[in-house]
Amino acid sequence: MELLPLIKKPTLLLDVNRSRANLQRMSVKARNQNVRFRPHFKTHQSAEIGAWFREEGVHQITVSSIDMAYYFAQHGWKDITIAFPFNWRQVDEANALAEQVHLELLVESVDTVHYLGANLTQPVDIWIKIDVGAHRTGINWEDVKTVRSIIAEIMRYPKLHLRGSLTHAGHTYHANNRKDIIEIYQGSLHKLGSIRDQLRPDGFALEISVGDTPACSLMEHLGDVDEIRPGNFIFYDVQQWMLDCCSEEDIAVAVACPVVAKHPDRKEVVIYGGAIHLSKDYILENGHPCYGQIAFPEDNGWGSSIPGGYVSALSQEHGIVRFDAGGYERVCIGELLIVLPVHSCLVISALPNYLTLQGQTIEKMSANDCRELSA
Amino acid sequence: MELLPLIKKPTLLLDVNRSRANLQRMSVKARNQNVRFRPHFKTHQSAEIGAWFREEGVHQITVSSIDMAYYFAQHGWKDITIAFPFNWRQVDEANALAEQVHLELLVESVDTVHYLGANLTQPVDIWIKIDVGAHRTGINWEDVKTVRSIIAEIMRYPKLHLRGSLTHAGHTYHANNRKDIIEIYQGSLHKLGSIRDQLRPDGFALEISVGDTPACSLMEHLGDVDEIRPGNFIFYDVQQWMLDCCSEEDIAVAVACPVVAKHPDRKEVVIYGGAIHLSKDYILENGHPCYGQIAFPEDNGWGSSIPGGYVSALSQEHGIVRFDAGGYERVCIGELLIVLPVHSCLVISALPNYLTLQGQTIEKMSANDCRELSA
Repeated sequence: MELLPLIKKPTLLLDVNRSRANLQRMSVKARNQNVRFRPHFKTHQSAEIGAWFREEGVHQITVSSIDMAYYFAQHGWKDITIAFPFNWRQVDEANALAEQVHLELLVESVDTVHYLGANLTQPVDIWIKIDVGAHRTGINWEDVKTVRSIIAEIMRYPKLHLRGSLTHAGHTYHANNRKDIIEIYQGSLHKLGSIRDQLRPDGFALEISVGDTPACSLMEHLGDVDEIRPGNFIFYDVQQWMLDCCSEEDIAVAVACPVVAKHPDRKEVVIYGGAIHLSKDYILENGHPCYGQIAFPEDNGWGSSIPGGYVSALSQEHGIVRFDAGGYERVCIGELLIVLPVHSCLVISALPNYLTLQGQTIEKMSANDCRELSA
Repeated sequence: MELLPLIKKPTLLLDVNRSRANLQRMSVKARNQNVRFRPHFKTHQSAEIGAWFREEGVHQITVSSIDMAYYFAQHGWKDITIAFPFNWRQVDEANALAEQVHLELLVESVDTVHYLGANLTQPVDIWIKIDVGAHRTGINWEDVKTVRSIIAEIMRYPKLHLRGSLTHAGHTYHANNRKDIIEIYQGSLHKLGSIRDQLRPDGFALEISVGDTPACSLMEHLGDVDEIRPGNFIFYDVQQWMLDCCSEEDIAVAVACPVVAKHPDRKEVVIYGGAIHLSKDYILENGHPCYGQIAFPEDNGWGSSIPGGYVSALSQEHGIVRFDAGGYERVCIGELLIVLPVHSCLVISALPNYLTLQGQTIEKMSANDCRELSA
């Protein structure tokens, strides 16, 4: 079957073979080292892709919202961590979920533990979110006093079961090279290990959960952790490739975009594919924002990216593609260009479903799934 | 009815009174000056909000995609301009649409006119897209030779009916002050007028269509144009406010986001509201990216924005809110913060529906509507 004639508008392409190879590599790494693999499903958001993980023996997952937990619970997942500071306003939904599945929640304040203790009707496991340097969420790893207060509060409620400390070392995404990423990972383990060691004399055996794709991809030895929670690795993207955490040939998703205009004077092409399809995440390349690398379609997918070919600007539905080092002449109005995404998670969130290179549609969580639990 | 307890997760709030006042102001301006008002519906994307325009006597609209044209055609709109360079790969869909409605399409190359001439089965009107300085799409306004070639090609096909020249002076969004916006508008009229005047001796009477919200809001006298196509004005946003094209009290949409964590050491708050809800569009404020201004909720909506309170960073579901000049102490975990969007069009695209301040849900075009015309 011919794939390209099927595509009429911005379309999320999925190379199943690449994706399953990415999955198997990470899964084998965790299994061989006896580390629990609890992948983050916010990247793919798809029950069908989730099933590939089950085939790899995965039964425990991470999600980023109550809605997403609900979607995967409906698709048979029974052990779910919501890796987001607990949202008090969805406590009824959390109770409904915890009736159906084993639920693990994140806290980073005594107040939230108190709220959970007072309002949860079902038992849940609790992870304490620690900030190891990303400075987004979590308790500073040196603030063991607050960690102790939170644990004391958890202990007041029989429904709350303390599991351990959890971090997302998101600053690996801003690292300059492999060495920095490895150092951040080793630092994270040291910091969470330090908390665990300080609490041990009090009789607490805290587990350690970490999980960013850059470090989990690069570390040969995952070290002294109980659990990893990477998500992006299932598809990777240009950002991970630039970080040297994958090769270009590991990138398993791309957006096919129709060419609608050409501007020879500035070697620019206008594609149907804008901020609402590609998201406005970018990396800087030679000082210019790059919203995606460009490749040409091939019969069975897409070819290697074109050096100097990138999405330089986005408005709501338009993308501007530049060819700074050749390739412009090959572009024809009415044909497709392939955009390798800078950040696959956001692109996937923006598009309604996947089209595999074999021409099959794979569904994902939709706005309607989100709405089922809403007001 | 109490609004705030209804809100459990990032929710798009709509102040109907403000929005209808914005609509009436623009509508009256166009009517009083005998300028055709063909508002861009890509901002609101809602059949129900579209009906407010009908009450103002609007019967002609602009959209940015075939899908959006199809959605509004299903809701009774009969005269639709697709203000996007025509996408050849959707010619079947264009034919299906043109059987139902009066369709106006944009071209900017002889090739596209030829393609339309050879493949359209229904008559359509054709606008030639002109670049007056935004350098996104369109033919450079001085390149009258290419305009003439396009017109010659249009004339070859009886189904194609030449209407005129159309521009989007998107560079008003990067203007520094009212004076610059006014100059860009006047320049656009001069440039499109110049093309019209050069073609008149050949017997062509080109219409002129312009339409960006900044200029259409600021210009008291719309000047020598046939049609305006603003869209954003229906809600405005922080960007328009900063451009002095509206007041803060004209901003009619905002996103209510639950507070999930507080970080007193850096006066930062973590909200449930990230890139997938707010989009990653930003403006620079004092050199820092601002993804939205912050206000506190009030019983019947939201209050004035807090000076120095802004969304400083976004990840997939998290937003980080800073309070650089007070306000932090008023924030409580479990309560809501209100984010005034930087760019309302993208925020609305990202969220599934509206909640009015009276507690009513207003639906908009969904991913399913988009899919009806897809492969």
